[in-house]
Amino acid sequence: MRKIDVCLSPELVGSFDLSGKLVVVVDILRATTCMVTALAHDVAQILPVATLEECQPYCQRDGFVTAGERNGIQLAWMDLGNSPLAYTSGDYAGKTVVMSTTNGTLALDRSRAADQVIVGAFVNLKAVTEYVKAQSRDVLIVCAGWKGMVNLEDSLFAGALVDRVEGEFQHETDAPLVVQLMYRQAAADLSGTVYRSAHVRRLHNLGIKDDIDFCLTPSLFSLIPVLQGAALVPLSD
Amino acid sequence: MRKIDVCLSPELVGSFDLSGKLVVVVDILRATTCMVTALAHDVAQILPVATLEECQPYCQRDGFVTAGERNGIQLAWMDLGNSPLAYTSGDYAGKTVVMSTTNGTLALDRSRAADQVIVGAFVNLKAVTEYVKAQSRDVLIVCAGWKGMVNLEDSLFAGALVDRVEGEFQHETDAPLVVQLMYRQAAADLSGTVYRSAHVRRLHNLGIKDDIDFCLTPSLFSLIPVLQGAALVPLSD
Repeated sequence: MRKIDVCLSPELVGSFDLSGKLVVVVDILRATTCMVTALAHDVAQILPVATLEECQPYCQRDGFVTAGERNGIQLAWMDLGNSPLAYTSGDYAGKTVVMSTTNGTLALDRSRAADQVIVGAFVNLKAVTEYVKAQSRDVLIVCAGWKGMVNLEDSLFAGALVDRVEGEFQHETDAPLVVQLMYRQAAADLSGTVYRSAHVRRLHNLGIKDDIDFCLTPSLFSLIPVLQGAALVPLSD
Repeated sequence: MRKIDVCLSPELVGSFDLSGKLVVVVDILRATTCMVTALAHDVAQILPVATLEECQPYCQRDGFVTAGERNGIQLAWMDLGNSPLAYTSGDYAGKTVVMSTTNGTLALDRSRAADQVIVGAFVNLKAVTEYVKAQSRDVLIVCAGWKGMVNLEDSLFAGALVDRVEGEFQHETDAPLVVQLMYRQAAADLSGTVYRSAHVRRLHNLGIKDDIDFCLTPSLFSLIPVLQGAALVPLSD
């Protein structure tokens, strides 16, 4: 039987064997939600970069849009922050978005040794669930967390995905059961639970309630971003 | 308000500031359950050591008992394995137990920078809860996990403790909420849940059902081991 596991923080990725695996990278608030939303609104590709130094050369360059945040706040020289709502107008169709975020980009970067890396969020949960079920590899869900710490919303997504593939995958460690139990306890009031989280209280102080509500809306898009070389592009059917 | 946090794997301890904190180290199956049980049965002190090399010099030495395991299995040259039931006869009263285990000793070792390090297990849950509430420091629960991975039973203990001090501590990150939600989902059938865990299936294959049932019995003892220099001794009232 295929195996599934969950890495609750990028700091723990080194303990997992990525070879031959399908990795699902998750940073619900807000990097992976942005990635799904951007590509679903016809952005050509996303270049996730780990450092601001790698992002800056694309500033004001034709065909490129720079996006990202540090500690939840947009940097003055960037075109966009980390709000998924910025992409819903379709204004960036055809562009390359160069995206550097605190945790999500790091999680992607540390997952590159996997056989395939896709991007998950509540906004594409159903599509990710179906893809995970339909393919044949072992699966590792890598949560971006918050500065090396476990966070609630990424763990909840991991639990939701583990719960939806129940019976088709064996748990490799206890982490899938931990997040599944937690998700089941929270599922009846997901957004109420997420509003209790430390990270969300931080973001809430930054006045982004609309972002948070959007990030928790399940399965708005059927698109799955996949890492292809250095870029995220839509996974083809 | 005092703060509480949970470190789900010794690999993550470096992300936490331990200074001034009370750390509760947890390795339910079976190191910290052994420590509580041994001291509650009049063992003089426990010397937790990280490596077998540090343990071996005490082998066959008068007044010392060597104890430990690697991958759940006792080593031939040691007096004892990692079963808490070995101590309930009182045969080791007055002795020093030199204990090296896969995960528990490592978690203790990495927690030494804290203001105080105590040892928690389900068998002394009530005593630990009362002590944590009665003192004034911020608290970090350090789960021993399994080879750097998150495990179910240590996370459940952390959730049980967070749940019991609700309202008296602010959560420092999301980890306390994650384990509390998981614990609440599992609380109605704690042992049934634990028997679903990967680690427990591993131990179960080693034929230690009695150990597991003992390790999940709440509040058998009112004793709390505390790290004093290199040794664990009973915390005085």
